Amino acid sequence: MTEYSLLEIVKLCNTVPDINALVSTEKAYRFLLDDGTLVGVVSNADIAALEAECTHTPLFVFDHSLRTIEFGASFDTEQKRSAALASILARLREQRGWATLAKWRNELYPVFGVKSSGAAVLWVERAASYNFGIRTYGVHINGFTRSTDGEVLMWVGKRAKSKSTWPGYLDQMAAGGIGNGLGILESVTKECEEEAQVPLDIATRAKAAGTIQYFTRSELGLQPETQYVFDLELPRDFVPVPNDGEVEQFYLWPISDVLRALRQSLFKPNCALCVVDFFVRHGIITAENEPDYVEIIDNIHCPLPFPGPTRPQ
Amino acid sequence: MTEYSLLEIVKLCNTVPDINALVSTEKAYRFLLDDGTLVGVVSNADIAALEAECTHTPLFVFDHSLRTIEFGASFDTEQKRSAALASILARLREQRGWATLAKWRNELYPVFGVKSSGAAVLWVERAASYNFGIRTYGVHINGFTRSTDGEVLMWVGKRAKSKSTWPGYLDQMAAGGIGNGLGILESVTKECEEEAQVPLDIATRAKAAGTIQYFTRSELGLQPETQYVFDLELPRDFVPVPNDGEVEQFYLWPISDVLRALRQSLFKPNCALCVVDFFVRHGIITAENEPDYVEIIDNIHCPLPFPGPTRPQ
Repeated sequence: MTEYSLLEIVKLCNTVPDINALVSTEKAYRFLLDDGTLVGVVSNADIAALEAECTHTPLFVFDHSLRTIEFGASFDTEQKRSAALASILARLREQRGWATLAKWRNELYPVFGVKSSGAAVLWVERAASYNFGIRTYGVHINGFTRSTDGEVLMWVGKRAKSKSTWPGYLDQMAAGGIGNGLGILESVTKECEEEAQVPLDIATRAKAAGTIQYFTRSELGLQPETQYVFDLELPRDFVPVPNDGEVEQFYLWPISDVLRALRQSLFKPNCALCVVDFFVRHGIITAENEPDYVEIIDNIHCPLPFPGPTRPQ
Repeated sequence: MTEYSLLEIVKLCNTVPDINALVSTEKAYRFLLDDGTLVGVVSNADIAALEAECTHTPLFVFDHSLRTIEFGASFDTEQKRSAALASILARLREQRGWATLAKWRNELYPVFGVKSSGAAVLWVERAASYNFGIRTYGVHINGFTRSTDGEVLMWVGKRAKSKSTWPGYLDQMAAGGIGNGLGILESVTKECEEEAQVPLDIATRAKAAGTIQYFTRSELGLQPETQYVFDLELPRDFVPVPNDGEVEQFYLWPISDVLRALRQSLFKPNCALCVVDFFVRHGIITAENEPDYVEIIDNIHCPLPFPGPTRPQ
């Protein structure tokens, strides 16, 4: 089986290094709020359908020379923008215009502006987030325990073969997107319960440990993502159990097995990033045993060109 | 006393957001290897002295329209570049041309290229690193212990009033630049011994925990830095002791006191970044208690525009 370096592995996730390249090489469109704030990027292939829809609902202004798609000035509130976009997406879904919309989630993802006082300026159906290349948010929970001699053992989930994305790949014990305005800690306990049957009193022991950030592209589209990372040290006798059909099986692996699976590219790419971050923070991957240490850490914490959640102003 | 937000505090360190701005607004010069690799930035004020020196030693080629200072093609090995630069710096020091050189360290800092096979392509006297804006490396060691009820207590050093930089400011228990090709772990144990009299058997327990990166400017000049971060949990009865006159006193503070000092900007700026990183990794600063959480983490992990150490090719 091919073995990759850990730097190659993290770069398999970070596959969109530069939005300017998308715009110039692939003729993608910058997605702008009515105040000009860049909040996403739309693939060239999706522009025609949006422009046709805008004959019904004049939500967007298109500039084909600058290659921008911008909210019209009359769509100047979160409610107006979100409602008009929802109606456009509903029609595209009916017409089967975009393949992504076949997996309609009824889950809204927030988009933040520069001066949005900490509140979303737009809500987008999750299934369409990939079409607009908006920045999205999620939680990843590293479940681990320690052997009697203190060795770290990691719980690894194997994604069900029926999953539409990355079937059969390895994953964190629990992870998921944050939608519908759910809180971060609520998302942690929800995913722990839904994916691994971790009861609330254990899931709430999960400790915040920072974020990972990357800009990836999958078959679904563009995904610039911020994942809130949590470490959950589990009692030695606790066993996570698949619950919602998304996980086929859980394994409890020593570090050496997890590292081997990482290098063999058996993890879903963003989950690999999360494991590498865990190993860096826990002193398992170090500058002594990993010559690409500094560049690997750069690839775990990519700056994203879109505003994120901020302090209420 | 003025209180700042933690985002303001980390931005007090990250004061050079963009090298293009330095070049266009301040008429600084890009510092290039003979293969065109960008490895630093030279302030406009330092160019005249270097150009005058190059009448003796034609080390650099200046392009005043592109604003670049580039190694001449004949300086095509590490040895040739380093020796010629050393002789120029020695003359500038004699002539008292640059204030920075009054603090000559006899310590060489490495500069890495893109395809440098993991080895330095140039060594620069530490005192002149600020003039060339080269990327530098160091270690910061968070010394901490836990109270009997598990609460984290942090050892904080107060820099001596006689220090030439940031006198009286707060600092990690131990920290220092990595020069002369010293290893990272050797630097950790050296700084622990020199600054805090931490014996080797305790210092070697320091656990690697990643890096912090920032691009700052101090009175000395430009400093794009990568700091290797270590956490050292100390026995409860261990007390670090100032050793080399660089530290006036050590304090053992609960988190609340460290946070107050952080917000009052009493830490040296890059040390503040290191404390914030510790608090993020240990779940003390979270998205729940810190509205700028995501942007703070961005500011702890700035990408730097110069190559770093890489895997031997």
